[in-house]
Amino acid sequence: MRIYFAASVRGGRADAGLYRQLIRHLRKFGKVLTEHIGEPDLATKGEDGLPDQHIHNRDMKWLRLSQLVVAEVTTPSLGVGYEIGRASEKGKPILCLFRPRRGKKLSAMIAGSPDVTLCNYRTAEEARLAIDRFFSVHTKKT
Amino acid sequence: MRIYFAASVRGGRADAGLYRQLIRHLRKFGKVLTEHIGEPDLATKGEDGLPDQHIHNRDMKWLRLSQLVVAEVTTPSLGVGYEIGRASEKGKPILCLFRPRRGKKLSAMIAGSPDVTLCNYRTAEEARLAIDRFFSVHTKKT
Repeated sequence: MRIYFAASVRGGRADAGLYRQLIRHLRKFGKVLTEHIGEPDLATKGEDGLPDQHIHNRDMKWLRLSQLVVAEVTTPSLGVGYEIGRASEKGKPILCLFRPRRGKKLSAMIAGSPDVTLCNYRTAEEARLAIDRFFSVHTKKT
Repeated sequence: MRIYFAASVRGGRADAGLYRQLIRHLRKFGKVLTEHIGEPDLATKGEDGLPDQHIHNRDMKWLRLSQLVVAEVTTPSLGVGYEIGRASEKGKPILCLFRPRRGKKLSAMIAGSPDVTLCNYRTAEEARLAIDRFFSVHTKKT
């Protein structure tokens, strides 16, 4: 099982520690192609030394190769939205994890998409349980 | 000519006045299906009273009907990224307008995409000129 984990890089890295926890949990189900998203030294300016086109084409190749997409969508991010949009068009199952905060509302493009399984969570434990449910539904079929 | 203009709604409305100016300019080339994006009373919480699924499905219908996509990408936004991702998969010409600011870097998914025409601009006038160039290239073919 190949998994694409999407989370904010240049949009903001406040949740990097949580991304790392979620990636560790996702590894129980298969190979997380985008493991570097959880690295603490991955700054908001992104991956040093790699040209943007290289990053884009590598990530799009990983997205094509993945069977499932899990995205943490609390921090608004163009890249995460882009990946969810492309994955939707490709018909891949997508789980979006959102931590509600006062005064912040999730984009209607994510909250209103019939192609997205949305989970509002408060704790890392709740997010891990949502991942377990998502994988139990989507790995039954294979 | 039907045009899809994408810009941040729930991600932040600091640039709403600029969006309005860009929409006014785009009207010279055709019908802007998403004109409401420039409305000053469209709050960060979105369109009052409309369910998210209604907004999503309406916008995706407008995206399908559009010949060209113009996106203002300075404010990180999941919805704008999602729309660019879906439009890329559909093979639609996409212009992204980005206003560089100190310490902020555009997502590699946008800056590195071969399917996106990217323009870095400083003033509304520069953005309007980029729109003129984009339409002169993409309306020659029709």
